[in-house]
Amino acid sequence: MGTNRLESFSDAVIAVAITLLVITITVPEPGSHPHQSLAFALGQEWPEYAAYVVTFMTIGIIWINHHAMISRLTRADHPIMILNLLLLMSIAVLPFATELMATYLRQPDGQKLAAAIYSAAFLVMSLAFSALNRHVLLRKSDMLRADLSLERRRQILSRAVTGLIPYAFATAIAFVSPYATLAICAAMGVFYSLPVASGSESTT
Amino acid sequence: MGTNRLESFSDAVIAVAITLLVITITVPEPGSHPHQSLAFALGQEWPEYAAYVVTFMTIGIIWINHHAMISRLTRADHPIMILNLLLLMSIAVLPFATELMATYLRQPDGQKLAAAIYSAAFLVMSLAFSALNRHVLLRKSDMLRADLSLERRRQILSRAVTGLIPYAFATAIAFVSPYATLAICAAMGVFYSLPVASGSESTT
Amino acid sequence: MGTNRLESFSDAVIAVAITLLVITITVPEPGSHPHQSLAFALGQEWPEYAAYVVTFMTIGIIWINHHAMISRLTRADHPIMILNLLLLMSIAVLPFATELMATYLRQPDGQKLAAAIYSAAFLVMSLAFSALNRHVLLRKSDMLRADLSLERRRQILSRAVTGLIPYAFATAIAFVSPYATLAICAAMGVFYSLPVASGSESTT
Amino acid sequence: MGTNRLESFSDAVIAVAITLLVITITVPEPGSHPHQSLAFALGQEWPEYAAYVVTFMTIGIIWINHHAMISRLTRADHPIMILNLLLLMSIAVLPFATELMATYLRQPDGQKLAAAIYSAAFLVMSLAFSALNRHVLLRKSDMLRADLSLERRRQILSRAVTGLIPYAFATAIAFVSPYATLAICAAMGVFYSLPVASGSESTT
Repeated sequence: MGTNRLESFSDAVIAVAITLLVITITVPEPGSHPHQSLAFALGQEWPEYAAYVVTFMTIGIIWINHHAMISRLTRADHPIMILNLLLLMSIAVLPFATELMATYLRQPDGQKLAAAIYSAAFLVMSLAFSALNRHVLLRKSDMLRADLSLERRRQILSRAVTGLIPYAFATAIAFVSPYATLAICAAMGVFYSLPVASGSESTT
Repeated sequence: MGTNRLESFSDAVIAVAITLLVITITVPEPGSHPHQSLAFALGQEWPEYAAYVVTFMTIGIIWINHHAMISRLTRADHPIMILNLLLLMSIAVLPFATELMATYLRQPDGQKLAAAIYSAAFLVMSLAFSALNRHVLLRKSDMLRADLSLERRRQILSRAVTGLIPYAFATAIAFVSPYATLAICAAMGVFYSLPVASGSESTT
Repeated sequence: MGTNRLESFSDAVIAVAITLLVITITVPEPGSHPHQSLAFALGQEWPEYAAYVVTFMTIGIIWINHHAMISRLTRADHPIMILNLLLLMSIAVLPFATELMATYLRQPDGQKLAAAIYSAAFLVMSLAFSALNRHVLLRKSDMLRADLSLERRRQILSRAVTGLIPYAFATAIAFVSPYATLAICAAMGVFYSLPVASGSESTT
Repeated sequence: MGTNRLESFSDAVIAVAITLLVITITVPEPGSHPHQSLAFALGQEWPEYAAYVVTFMTIGIIWINHHAMISRLTRADHPIMILNLLLLMSIAVLPFATELMATYLRQPDGQKLAAAIYSAAFLVMSLAFSALNRHVLLRKSDMLRADLSLERRRQILSRAVTGLIPYAFATAIAFVSPYATLAICAAMGVFYSLPVASGSESTT
């Protein structure tokens, strides 16, 4: 299979997932806050807005990285298709993980587990991306577009694997402070949005 | 009509259906499980996760097979468009069948029928795929890209038809054990994800 | 603007609308039918299935016709873009009209109005399509790909306009029998799915 | 990164957002209006229809403008990708802002804030568009396809910035009359749909 259709299907799934995220932001029901203003009711929902922005940017960045990875390939075989499907599944469940996080962040019971699941979802997505990247770079080097040296390929991979550590840490720390988990996931989004952090990826 | 637009429209419908699946996974309402933890409430929902994974992989595999079929065509006529629409409809209803299965798998009343409908939905999808494949391979051989021998075309078709049997069996066995139905549908997904099973399809 | 992006954006909107339709089919809530089986509860929902199939095929056919229209163009100007947006809006509201029809078809109060709105939605879609087609064929003939005679263009248009009559009739008859409205809309879908009915359109 | 994939991903996100809007139009629940007809219940929902049409046309117009902007580029770098993601986020939240507006427009408590947020969402979208446009036109002139004079580029930008003023005014006036806010947003949609208003943009 050529990479064109793999790319356009992946693009479509990622685009739907990132846009569907908006259903996690709820409109307060009129009358559900009798003694409070709409401003107060909307303010109470800040975890929904925060989780929305963090997930949106994280999916956006994985889309950019996914493009860089696919653009190195000349064609795709069955294992690449299946690994890519697993990656897309890990992206497609993010609206659920985001809604879980937003719903429970301020609930005394469940906030730690919800935060842990939220960053674990990002960790799983990064793992799926690394597994696909590793398969492509180390085992299918005959399908690579350019002649990347083994050293260069290992460098790209180690960079991807390094990205796993903050999400693993954010998952562990959720049981201490779920707010710290959200802050780390947000910081990851900001970090990868900066020109420097991603410069090396986009030039390969 | 060229096959490009047929392919991109089909891709978009399949991509939306596979991503929309996530709305079948529900976030437990806070306070709806007063004496239980969030972990318990999430654990109760395991049929939602299982059905999600099985349907996601099944749609992903039909997408791969759909590509293989379309890539053999040089152009598409009206009957191909209509048969393809029927196939897309059978894929687009899967979020409903998945939610039905997940909701009723643990309900004493309804679990058998829900499981039967779930695998019957996969059976209908496979039937629609086989009908389209048969139309393309046996009746529209002048639109085929490569010169496939009649023997080879019959071989591709018989492989597709063979895939119907497990879903028919899974539908029948739902009235004995709905869990067996889910297990068979899951096994089908795993089987088609293996490199060997799909190798012959992807090389044609 | 080239027609490529106009076509791919229209395809995406139509693909999302046709796939989003599935949210109009609801899973019966467990326990909501205490003395009845799931089979009975699902059977009660037959208007949802019927309306789903009719709308799905109608959107699918408008997609085929939309492709035929765009493929005659070499480029698109601003009025074409805006008329196309209006056509897409008339398609994008169909999930609402379908849910309205399915919800009220069996309600003594409201069934006639719901059925009238349902077929009126198809009528508006056909009108938007005819308006765009007319604009393209009669006023922007310099943007047409092939050299279509004025007679041929008028023939295409009159065919499109003829398609309006059954929907207008179905809307009027809704106040006598909403079931007749559904039957006419279904018959239109079947008619356009037949090879003969659409043959002339697809050969232009 | 080439602009092709940036464009197709943006198209997909915008297409999903514009089509997902339909979920803001709700079907009245049967029996929820015991002494009133369905016609009355639907009439009560007119803010939903008005907000739907205004948002649909506004997103449609930003899509046309987005295309004009991208078509001037030969390639995209990381800052362009991130600014484009922020623009897409401002578009993807519009279904929420639209539902908020439609739900509260007729509620004495909250209607002013809801209307202010609605037009503020359009203002933010226009700001994100202007920021991206400014970045492309003034700082990345080496990536521009055609040789646009500095004067011409400033002219395009000032036109985009001029578009901010009505949305800023509509946001401010929401605290006087939310209906005026809706009217201004609607007028903007009509204005940009006219051939004259957008003529200059589409010819660049």
